[in-house]
Amino acid sequence: MRGWLSAGEFLSCWCLWVVIVVVFGPAGSGKTTLVGEFGRYLSEQEFSVAYVNLDCAVESLPYRPNFDVRNYFTLVDIMRRFGLGPNGALVKSMELLLDLVGEVSSKLEKLGLLYDYVFVDTPGQLELTLFHDAVVKLVESFARRGLALFLTPADMLKRPRDLVFLNLMALAVRVRFEIPLVTVLTKADLLDREFVERLRARVAQGLGGLEEDLVAELASIVDRLEKKQRLIKVSAITREGFDDLQTILHEVFCTCGELT
Amino acid sequence: MRGWLSAGEFLSCWCLWVVIVVVFGPAGSGKTTLVGEFGRYLSEQEFSVAYVNLDCAVESLPYRPNFDVRNYFTLVDIMRRFGLGPNGALVKSMELLLDLVGEVSSKLEKLGLLYDYVFVDTPGQLELTLFHDAVVKLVESFARRGLALFLTPADMLKRPRDLVFLNLMALAVRVRFEIPLVTVLTKADLLDREFVERLRARVAQGLGGLEEDLVAELASIVDRLEKKQRLIKVSAITREGFDDLQTILHEVFCTCGELT
Repeated sequence: MRGWLSAGEFLSCWCLWVVIVVVFGPAGSGKTTLVGEFGRYLSEQEFSVAYVNLDCAVESLPYRPNFDVRNYFTLVDIMRRFGLGPNGALVKSMELLLDLVGEVSSKLEKLGLLYDYVFVDTPGQLELTLFHDAVVKLVESFARRGLALFLTPADMLKRPRDLVFLNLMALAVRVRFEIPLVTVLTKADLLDREFVERLRARVAQGLGGLEEDLVAELASIVDRLEKKQRLIKVSAITREGFDDLQTILHEVFCTCGELT
Repeated sequence: MRGWLSAGEFLSCWCLWVVIVVVFGPAGSGKTTLVGEFGRYLSEQEFSVAYVNLDCAVESLPYRPNFDVRNYFTLVDIMRRFGLGPNGALVKSMELLLDLVGEVSSKLEKLGLLYDYVFVDTPGQLELTLFHDAVVKLVESFARRGLALFLTPADMLKRPRDLVFLNLMALAVRVRFEIPLVTVLTKADLLDREFVERLRARVAQGLGGLEEDLVAELASIVDRLEKKQRLIKVSAITREGFDDLQTILHEVFCTCGELT
């Protein structure tokens, strides 16, 4: 598939870059499940897909990784080897990952020459990715040909202010990693179709509460900036939203598209 | 100490509320260490201090908790009982904590009647606090008499954009929990004294990079909003910044103060 896209609407485009898709999100947001199922969806369309797993604590994967950090260390090993509890071991794992950045980066370079899409599944805990240097350094090595997905479970959105929170988090991730970012609400099958639109409308009306002024100002800023970001809903069960996600990847993948 | 503050400068104020200080921050940011050492510092001034531990994965505490979630469940128990790996068990622990919210909230109510300060030490992983409902519901029950500390290790700040990231994160936490918030750079002994000021100056000059416009816009917004927030530096080793932190708590504690 290299060089040309199969989808009819993109047939006329020259595609210069492989897409490296780095998948961020809190534990339980469905990163690994989405990578597995969306990877399968792309494979079914005869794209070639590679997978990099950076989560040393994951038990099993629904895809066959081309690079697996667990071949170097696992969380249980670290707990035993350094006599640490789970909290300490998770932090330690990021120091070990930092030592591996050069190796992972070379591997990504090679995979990028062989595959149409390369997915990077980040550590289970988002904050390990956010507050430590390992993944920042890794993303720096491919940022110009990469795209980040920022996953959040749809059922986390309850109050209008949760939408403002989520958009602020997405902006924070984007600033930290300096990479185009798409916010993906996972488990969309749990969500009433118009729910996000209703929340948006309520944010626009003002949120009230303790610090109304601050939140109102933030909401209007985020609303304006959000137009530069994308928010899509997907379900790894029903495959709802997979076509939107693929379109966005194509736009990055292909010089005729523009993400921002 | 109830009713009056001991510190001379505040002697003339009536103090109506106990302060419940909820301490947020990623794993390894020093939440538990700061709660222990700052609690000791307040005790040495003859304030009475209570401690609530919500981290089921912590191995040992440098303070004696008045409420300890580990009396109900520990991470290791959950892994065994539900046959889960560490990632799954951490997420499960938040469901169990949600069931305990009523109980913790009543306990906080009682502690608030007996102590000058009540510290709430949150789960090791910030994202468990951020992306699940348990701590949100708990904070709702005392938000009007509470203050949040958002801890980040000072050595996480390297590039100007990390400061923008940090301020966005702090805003996100503030919006999610609807509570006054102070950003605390911990491990300040690791940080050159003028470093943050230099980063600030560089942010003001523009950051460059992939999405200069977006980041510049964000930086200016955050700079403006940051004036409504506080950022202080503390060290649990040298006790640097403890006096600033105490002043801020007094301002909330005391009707004569104003946080924002």
